[in-house]
Amino acid sequence: PELLTPRAMAALLPGRPGDAHKGSVGRVLVAGGHAAYTGAPVLAALGAHRAGAGLVTVAYPAELRLNLPLESVRHPLESWSAGALAGVRAEAAAVGMGAGPLAHAAAEAVLALRLPTVLDADALRPELVQAYVREGVPAVITPHPGEAARLLGGEAGAVAAEPLEAARALAERFPKVVVVLKGGPTVLAWKAGEGLEFAVNTTGNPAMASGGTGDVLAGVVAALMAAGLPPWDAARLGVYLHGLSGDRRGRVGLLAHELADALPEARAALERGEVR
Amino acid sequence: PELLTPRAMAALLPGRPGDAHKGSVGRVLVAGGHAAYTGAPVLAALGAHRAGAGLVTVAYPAELRLNLPLESVRHPLESWSAGALAGVRAEAAAVGMGAGPLAHAAAEAVLALRLPTVLDADALRPELVQAYVREGVPAVITPHPGEAARLLGGEAGAVAAEPLEAARALAERFPKVVVVLKGGPTVLAWKAGEGLEFAVNTTGNPAMASGGTGDVLAGVVAALMAAGLPPWDAARLGVYLHGLSGDRRGRVGLLAHELADALPEARAALERGEVR
Amino acid sequence: PELLTPRAMAALLPGRPGDAHKGSVGRVLVAGGHAAYTGAPVLAALGAHRAGAGLVTVAYPAELRLNLPLESVRHPLESWSAGALAGVRAEAAAVGMGAGPLAHAAAEAVLALRLPTVLDADALRPELVQAYVREGVPAVITPHPGEAARLLGGEAGAVAAEPLEAARALAERFPKVVVVLKGGPTVLAWKAGEGLEFAVNTTGNPAMASGGTGDVLAGVVAALMAAGLPPWDAARLGVYLHGLSGDRRGRVGLLAHELADALPEARAALERGEVR
Amino acid sequence: PELLTPRAMAALLPGRPGDAHKGSVGRVLVAGGHAAYTGAPVLAALGAHRAGAGLVTVAYPAELRLNLPLESVRHPLESWSAGALAGVRAEAAAVGMGAGPLAHAAAEAVLALRLPTVLDADALRPELVQAYVREGVPAVITPHPGEAARLLGGEAGAVAAEPLEAARALAERFPKVVVVLKGGPTVLAWKAGEGLEFAVNTTGNPAMASGGTGDVLAGVVAALMAAGLPPWDAARLGVYLHGLSGDRRGRVGLLAHELADALPEARAALERGEVR
Repeated sequence: PELLTPRAMAALLPGRPGDAHKGSVGRVLVAGGHAAYTGAPVLAALGAHRAGAGLVTVAYPAELRLNLPLESVRHPLESWSAGALAGVRAEAAAVGMGAGPLAHAAAEAVLALRLPTVLDADALRPELVQAYVREGVPAVITPHPGEAARLLGGEAGAVAAEPLEAARALAERFPKVVVVLKGGPTVLAWKAGEGLEFAVNTTGNPAMASGGTGDVLAGVVAALMAAGLPPWDAARLGVYLHGLSGDRRGRVGLLAHELADALPEARAALERGEVR
Repeated sequence: PELLTPRAMAALLPGRPGDAHKGSVGRVLVAGGHAAYTGAPVLAALGAHRAGAGLVTVAYPAELRLNLPLESVRHPLESWSAGALAGVRAEAAAVGMGAGPLAHAAAEAVLALRLPTVLDADALRPELVQAYVREGVPAVITPHPGEAARLLGGEAGAVAAEPLEAARALAERFPKVVVVLKGGPTVLAWKAGEGLEFAVNTTGNPAMASGGTGDVLAGVVAALMAAGLPPWDAARLGVYLHGLSGDRRGRVGLLAHELADALPEARAALERGEVR
Repeated sequence: PELLTPRAMAALLPGRPGDAHKGSVGRVLVAGGHAAYTGAPVLAALGAHRAGAGLVTVAYPAELRLNLPLESVRHPLESWSAGALAGVRAEAAAVGMGAGPLAHAAAEAVLALRLPTVLDADALRPELVQAYVREGVPAVITPHPGEAARLLGGEAGAVAAEPLEAARALAERFPKVVVVLKGGPTVLAWKAGEGLEFAVNTTGNPAMASGGTGDVLAGVVAALMAAGLPPWDAARLGVYLHGLSGDRRGRVGLLAHELADALPEARAALERGEVR
Repeated sequence: PELLTPRAMAALLPGRPGDAHKGSVGRVLVAGGHAAYTGAPVLAALGAHRAGAGLVTVAYPAELRLNLPLESVRHPLESWSAGALAGVRAEAAAVGMGAGPLAHAAAEAVLALRLPTVLDADALRPELVQAYVREGVPAVITPHPGEAARLLGGEAGAVAAEPLEAARALAERFPKVVVVLKGGPTVLAWKAGEGLEFAVNTTGNPAMASGGTGDVLAGVVAALMAAGLPPWDAARLGVYLHGLSGDRRGRVGLLAHELADALPEARAALERGEVR
């Protein structure tokens, strides 16, 4: 498999022309949230902002009080009905973070927009991923071993013991879906046509093992897709930057929002060729 | 056109005498907000505070929960009726940020105060700008190319391709109104009497292409007018400082509130002659 | 008049013995708040925390949503009735910040506790200050020139032109009340017995001329009284530290909460003899 | 008694293997909160996050608006009934912070989970501690002298004058419960079997004498138990790290959340052998 190197990842960084404006550099839709998890969609939104999204709209159940960044756009919903997201302008989406039992309805509402989408957390259910495959809508899935096992019908322990095998199995089960199997290290796989692509991340560390870091990653990958990267490139670069940010800031006791906040500096360091 | 230079801009910085107090250095009214955009008026208020306003009052629909700076004064409104802003004490205003469909009513309520006003975002509609012209109330408009096209009845692409032409057209259509056409670079124009004044900003960068940076700018320009600068000077200095702040902090992934928070240091650097 | 020097002020700093605990280093009651001014009591609480209070309780109308520090104790009230503050444990109080039309009732409720009290902002009314004089409860008043004029029945301009005279007049009108007349510089006066004491602050700068800095000061002085300093010492040291903090951090565009947050470092510098 | 040394404490630090994930490094339940004390459970949650918990769930009365970290999981409750905490997944708990009159019911609800638990603040009542003894559920109690006196039926002054004696008395009254008697210095005692273990902390300072620092400590100790440390080790290491954090950041005016935020750096310094 490909080992993600600073040089290769730096080459993927989307440029930003002199006439860039907030509408041209990528708009992201984040969809999630539930009474128990009011922070998860916020962390995803923060990840998207920090990864360079020009605009981030967060769709969430209206009864929640989300402590969103001042820079995000709110889209409170009475329900995740079919037309709930009509009128949202975005080039990519991330769905599932903190959605709990509402994840199914949320993912279906997002699917109707036919945007490249990151499926995370509670949206990582076989039937939802299959729906993306069936509809031919580009998707990235970001399971941890437990979620991967749920998708495969296996055991988390087996996934963690053989991550490359598990990533391969997921990629084969869900053709054209980019698989990001989180762990130490994170493994990526993707069945584009005939062959199977593999990549293994080289950044990240155990201090990142805490709640919310996965939500941030979902927002990062969505922002990179919104900026124009194909899903495979967005996933590889997103995972790499996320881990790089963790390596630069990471101490046990790190909070996930700090990981997001460290992204711009990590990205700038990568761009300047300071990462080895 | 005039290229904005550090020396010329430093000369415009309003002084602050030894007996200055919060009521003497400029009071700003910010008017905006809507269910989807609860951050926009907050960012404008923050911009005004950071640009040196002594007091910032934020008028907004009472049903919103605005996460205002502790230092702002709240003016929650049942509606944007004629007398809604009676009793507000300010020397300048900024209106439209995040106001959505309420922008029209908000701008009319602000106009009744006859204060020098920045019209931004949803308040950038031809009939509202014309009302300021007709009433002889000083105004600054801060459109991006899409909003400029709406004001001119043209296309955003054409505006972006020929920003000097578009700024000129706006300045001629709205005499005495200072035009700030945002872009890379931002162009300013103003038809004072017979002639037309032009300026081109020399600060700013594409990392600032993200949601909320325009809201901050509106607050900055309003604060400089409240401090006593004529609209043309406030607009030029405001645009310059805003871009300078972005150049000092700006990395892709910057959040707009960070741009505001970097203003005092940028201003101090300009004042000390450290900017070239 | 006495010019406040670093050496004299350092000598006033309350020590903190090895067995200090949160109940022994000073507990402060902050009373204020109103729909328009939800930040003012929060800033006063922050000032008290930052000046070393062990516990800070904030009493405020229950319908407000105050964004208090996590470390403050809430005391939401249905009304400022006589018994509203029964059970509050504190050694000093600050009242009036952001209280608007409720200041009168709030000040009377606080007076019933017979604690050394800072009267600020909307509580600066002649009848309220007189009540403290009459009851023999130690008080510090912190008017700006406009509030001083209201207390004296004169004009703000005259107060600002002759601050020493105005401070003297206030001290004579309200015997034993410590007068802090805010300005550039801030002047203090106090009629203890026969004679009149005067002091002039040597710290502070015009960048501090912005909303909320006075609220912070009220909390600082209350915390120093709660720590055991007599009102005259607490007022002089509080004004000095507040201005020192502003001199160390102060740039135009400073927000009042930053002034509070800079207090511990300013205090430590004063304690270490690093201030000249 | 044992004096806590950097070397001994560093040896207790739980490692974090390469395949660590948020579910494997320790999940903490925080239970508390009341109308007056909305910050206390938040500070405990922050302490747990900063001490390395992978997940932190906060159970609190549903009518409160807790300003939780984005990374925490919410568990709002209609009441502290028997089944209120069913389904919460955690390896350790902290209960009592800011619970006021609800502490009894909260502690009983937590006891039903049979997790190693820190009993703090309002949960420090003899009958509650006895219930843990009776049920054989591991417990750490963290009284200050006033709370210790309440547990012992004595006077706070006597406790503070003879902390070793008071700690011994508590340890004997509550066999197998780890006693953390907060003060200057903090003393720990524990009756494991026949003998009595004693320890005296060597970190911390009087600047930490302010509201909320104890809430942070409760969360820290719970997180270390959730990471797998036995209660005696978790209590010693937690107290040591908490004080070390205070020594590195502590100035009069420190806020408790800053103490929590400084924990990761303090822990890293201890791990690298930089603490003497």
